[in-house]
Amino acid sequence: MTPPELALRLPVIGVVRASHHELETTPIQAGLNRAEHGTIEIAEPYRDGLDGLGSFDYAWLLSWLHRPRDPDGPAPLRQVPFLLRRRQRRMGVFATRSPRRVNPIGLSLIQLLEVTSHAVVFAGVDLMDGTPVIDLKPYVTRFDRPPGKPRCGWYDEITITDGTTPGQLAQP
Amino acid sequence: MTPPELALRLPVIGVVRASHHELETTPIQAGLNRAEHGTIEIAEPYRDGLDGLGSFDYAWLLSWLHRPRDPDGPAPLRQVPFLLRRRQRRMGVFATRSPRRVNPIGLSLIQLLEVTSHAVVFAGVDLMDGTPVIDLKPYVTRFDRPPGKPRCGWYDEITITDGTTPGQLAQP
Repeated sequence: MTPPELALRLPVIGVVRASHHELETTPIQAGLNRAEHGTIEIAEPYRDGLDGLGSFDYAWLLSWLHRPRDPDGPAPLRQVPFLLRRRQRRMGVFATRSPRRVNPIGLSLIQLLEVTSHAVVFAGVDLMDGTPVIDLKPYVTRFDRPPGKPRCGWYDEITITDGTTPGQLAQP
Repeated sequence: MTPPELALRLPVIGVVRASHHELETTPIQAGLNRAEHGTIEIAEPYRDGLDGLGSFDYAWLLSWLHRPRDPDGPAPLRQVPFLLRRRQRRMGVFATRSPRRVNPIGLSLIQLLEVTSHAVVFAGVDLMDGTPVIDLKPYVTRFDRPPGKPRCGWYDEITITDGTTPGQLAQP
């Protein structure tokens, strides 16, 4: 039996403006690239939704990862994450933060620098210029911080460097 | 100018099984309801994607909040969050975790109890039975935990009780 699909029209609430235009040179995670700033331009009909966001230090940016597309169809369910390129180890996609997903929805923890009437300036860039934004949610410590030191699977076994890009990880 | 929409077909990777069937009696956040357990039944074509997830303690469950639907059209951009019902204070939707959003995508931090070949058993239920799951991502402390004590806007001004439901918050 073919599993169901949701046929949807998702409004694009805004667009990311950043300096990156190629996946291989775009840092892999917002939290690893706080030195860089970006902007979300909020589309006119959705600007009232920003009311109150300026009182938060962090937010979740949900984006539609329009690039890369897998040219040969759906993203593989087992794939080599950027951070395991040198070891060439494959993982299930739901155990990775890979942008090549069944549903390519990005989840970026951005630091809010300024919320204006029509834009959000943030620190922590892991998206390419032009990426469509589909939601913004405030970071709430009570909801979003697990207690203690949670096990983080294969990420616990590797060294992660600030500013890392896929291109750097491809080098031997 | 009308902003763009993304016309998409989102595969449903799985379905939430839980004890809740009405919004008003469903706890509002996973982190406030760790005592309750639920299950995600993963659809057959996507099960290989679970490989490695069992070594993580927490994961982000992205869901399509198929209920409630706003009967009169799109969700309002300013609305009274559940936790402000008694004060009747409105907030911009992007400053809330309300399920009534421009794009009703849920973000739940679930605690992983067991990952089998075809299902994920978790602690922390804030979804109704039958909710479609559109993504699972591992919780990675390095990416997902901001440093220090971030400001959390209006959430910092209120008392939040474990197990809270919208129905309880409606009572005077």
